[in-house]
Amino acid sequence: PDWTVIEQDGIRRLERVFTFKNFAQALAFTNKVGELAEEEGHHPSIALEWGRVGVVWWTHAIHGLHRNDFIMAAKTDKVYDSMH
Amino acid sequence: PDWTVIEQDGIRRLERVFTFKNFAQALAFTNKVGELAEEEGHHPSIALEWGRVGVVWWTHAIHGLHRNDFIMAAKTDKVYDSMH
Repeated sequence: PDWTVIEQDGIRRLERVFTFKNFAQALAFTNKVGELAEEEGHHPSIALEWGRVGVVWWTHAIHGLHRNDFIMAAKTDKVYDSMH
Repeated sequence: PDWTVIEQDGIRRLERVFTFKNFAQALAFTNKVGELAEEEGHHPSIALEWGRVGVVWWTHAIHGLHRNDFIMAAKTDKVYDSMH
Protein backbone atom coordinates (compact mmCIF):
# COMPACT_ATOMS: atom_id res chain seq x y z
CA PRO A 1 0.00 0.00 0.00
CA ASP A 2 2.96 2.33 0.53
CA TRP A 3 4.32 1.98 -2.98
CA THR A 4 3.34 4.59 -5.50
CA VAL A 5 3.75 4.69 -9.25
CA ILE A 6 5.84 7.69 -10.27
CA GLU A 7 6.96 8.86 -13.68
CA GLN A 8 10.56 9.95 -13.99
CA ASP A 9 12.32 10.67 -17.29
CA GLY A 10 9.22 9.39 -19.04
CA ILE A 11 9.45 5.99 -17.35
CA ARG A 12 6.86 4.64 -14.93
CA ARG A 13 8.44 3.33 -11.75
CA LEU A 14 7.43 2.01 -8.34
CA GLU A 15 8.64 4.05 -5.38
CA ARG A 16 8.48 3.67 -1.62
CA VAL A 17 10.27 5.59 1.12
CA PHE A 18 11.28 3.61 4.22
CA THR A 19 12.16 5.29 7.50
CA PHE A 20 14.75 4.33 10.09
CA LYS A 21 15.94 5.60 13.44
CA ASN A 22 19.44 6.51 12.27
CA PHE A 23 21.92 6.33 9.39
CA ALA A 24 23.35 2.91 10.31
CA GLN A 25 19.92 1.26 10.11
CA ALA A 26 19.24 2.93 6.77
CA LEU A 27 22.60 1.71 5.45
CA ALA A 28 21.93 -1.83 6.74
CA PHE A 29 18.61 -1.85 4.86
CA THR A 30 20.35 -0.57 1.73
CA ASN A 31 22.72 -3.51 1.93
CA LYS A 32 19.90 -6.01 2.35
CA VAL A 33 18.05 -4.59 -0.64
CA GLY A 34 21.33 -4.62 -2.57
CA GLU A 35 21.83 -8.28 -1.70
CA LEU A 36 18.30 -9.06 -2.90
CA ALA A 37 18.96 -7.15 -6.12
CA GLU A 38 22.13 -9.11 -6.80
CA GLU A 39 20.38 -12.43 -6.10
CA GLU A 40 17.59 -11.60 -8.52
CA GLY A 41 19.76 -9.84 -11.09
CA HIS A 42 17.38 -6.87 -10.99
CA HIS A 43 18.56 -3.55 -9.60
CA PRO A 44 16.63 -0.60 -8.18
CA SER A 45 17.78 2.89 -7.51
CA ILE A 46 18.26 3.53 -3.81
CA ALA A 47 18.27 6.98 -2.23
CA LEU A 48 19.98 6.75 1.15
CA GLU A 49 19.94 9.51 3.75
CA TRP A 50 20.06 9.70 7.54
CA GLY A 51 16.98 7.79 8.71
CA ARG A 52 15.49 7.37 5.26
CA VAL A 53 15.82 5.11 2.21
CA GLY A 54 13.87 5.59 -1.00
CA VAL A 55 13.68 2.52 -3.25
CA VAL A 56 12.61 2.73 -6.89
CA TRP A 57 11.98 -0.30 -9.09
CA TRP A 58 11.49 -0.36 -12.85
CA THR A 59 12.50 -2.58 -15.73
CA HIS A 60 15.24 -1.08 -17.86
CA ALA A 61 14.62 -3.31 -20.88
CA ILE A 62 11.01 -2.22 -21.30
CA HIS A 63 11.44 1.35 -19.96
CA GLY A 64 8.62 0.81 -17.53
CA LEU A 65 6.97 -1.52 -15.08
CA HIS A 66 6.87 -5.28 -15.36
CA ARG A 67 5.22 -7.82 -13.08
CA ASN A 68 8.67 -8.56 -11.66
CA ASP A 69 8.96 -5.02 -10.29
CA PHE A 70 5.90 -5.60 -8.14
CA ILE A 71 7.41 -8.86 -6.91
CA MET A 72 10.65 -7.04 -6.04
CA ALA A 73 8.64 -4.36 -4.22
CA ALA A 74 6.94 -7.04 -2.12
CA LYS A 75 10.31 -8.63 -1.36
CA THR A 76 11.67 -5.21 -0.37
CA ASP A 77 8.79 -4.86 2.09
CA LYS A 78 9.68 -8.24 3.59
CA VAL A 79 13.27 -7.10 4.08
CA TYR A 80 12.01 -3.98 5.86
CA ASP A 81 9.55 -5.92 8.01
CA SER A 82 12.31 -8.36 9.01
CA MET A 83 14.22 -5.41 10.51
CA HIS A 84 11.29 -4.15 12.62
CA PRO B 1 36.95 19.44 -10.01
CA ASP B 2 34.09 16.98 -10.45
CA TRP B 3 31.98 18.39 -7.65
CA THR B 4 29.32 20.91 -8.54
CA VAL B 5 27.25 23.18 -6.35
CA ILE B 6 23.56 22.45 -6.83
CA GLU B 7 20.51 24.02 -5.23
CA GLN B 8 17.82 21.64 -4.05
CA ASP B 9 14.84 22.63 -1.90
CA GLY B 10 16.43 26.07 -1.57
CA ILE B 11 19.62 24.62 -0.06
CA ARG B 12 23.04 24.80 -1.70
CA ARG B 13 24.74 21.43 -1.81
CA LEU B 14 27.84 19.77 -3.23
CA GLU B 15 27.20 16.93 -5.67
CA ARG B 16 29.37 14.46 -7.54
CA VAL B 17 28.43 11.34 -9.48
CA PHE B 18 30.87 8.43 -9.34
CA THR B 19 30.81 5.60 -11.85
CA PHE B 20 31.49 1.89 -11.36
CA LYS B 21 31.60 -1.21 -13.49
CA ASN B 22 28.67 -2.92 -11.77
CA PHE B 23 26.20 -2.77 -8.89
CA ALA B 24 28.43 -4.55 -6.37
CA GLN B 25 31.21 -1.98 -6.77
CA ALA B 26 28.73 0.86 -6.42
CA LEU B 27 27.33 -0.72 -3.24
CA ALA B 28 30.85 -1.23 -1.85
CA PHE B 29 31.59 2.46 -2.42
CA THR B 30 28.29 3.39 -0.74
CA ASN B 31 29.38 1.43 2.32
CA LYS B 32 32.77 3.10 2.43
CA VAL B 33 31.20 6.55 2.20
CA GLY B 34 28.69 5.48 4.86
CA GLU B 35 31.53 4.41 7.13
CA LEU B 36 33.24 7.77 6.61
CA ALA B 37 29.98 9.57 7.39
CA GLU B 38 29.53 7.65 10.63
CA GLU B 39 33.13 8.33 11.67
CA GLU B 40 32.72 12.05 11.07
CA GLY B 41 29.16 12.31 12.32
CA HIS B 42 28.20 14.07 9.09
CA HIS B 43 25.87 12.36 6.63
CA PRO B 44 25.37 12.88 2.90
CA SER B 45 22.57 11.71 0.69
CA ILE B 46 23.66 8.84 -1.53
CA ALA B 47 21.90 7.86 -4.75
CA LEU B 48 22.86 4.30 -5.62
CA GLU B 49 22.13 2.64 -8.93
CA TRP B 50 23.76 -0.03 -11.09
CA GLY B 51 27.22 1.35 -11.90
CA ARG B 52 26.60 4.79 -10.45
CA VAL B 53 26.60 6.56 -7.08
CA GLY B 54 25.63 10.19 -6.58
CA VAL B 55 26.89 11.76 -3.36
CA VAL B 56 25.51 15.05 -2.02
CA TRP B 57 26.95 16.91 0.96
CA TRP B 58 25.43 19.84 2.82
CA THR B 59 25.17 21.00 6.40
CA HIS B 60 21.72 20.51 7.87
CA ALA B 61 22.19 22.96 10.74
CA ILE B 62 22.93 25.92 8.49
CA HIS B 63 20.78 24.81 5.53
CA GLY B 64 23.71 25.19 3.21
CA LEU B 65 27.39 24.61 2.64
CA HIS B 66 30.05 24.77 5.31
CA ARG B 67 33.80 24.30 5.00
CA ASN B 68 33.33 20.81 6.41
CA ASP B 69 31.28 19.78 3.38
CA PHE B 70 34.23 20.51 1.11
CA ILE B 71 36.46 18.46 3.41
CA MET B 72 33.98 15.57 3.25
CA ALA B 73 33.88 15.88 -0.54
CA ALA B 74 37.68 15.58 -0.68
CA LYS B 75 37.54 12.55 1.64
CA THR B 76 34.89 10.99 -0.60
CA ASP B 77 37.23 11.43 -3.58
CA LYS B 78 39.96 9.63 -1.64
CA VAL B 79 37.62 6.73 -0.96
CA TYR B 80 36.83 6.54 -4.67
CA ASP B 81 40.49 6.79 -5.68
CA SER B 82 41.38 3.99 -3.24
CA MET B 83 39.04 1.70 -5.18
CA HIS B 84 40.57 2.47 -8.58
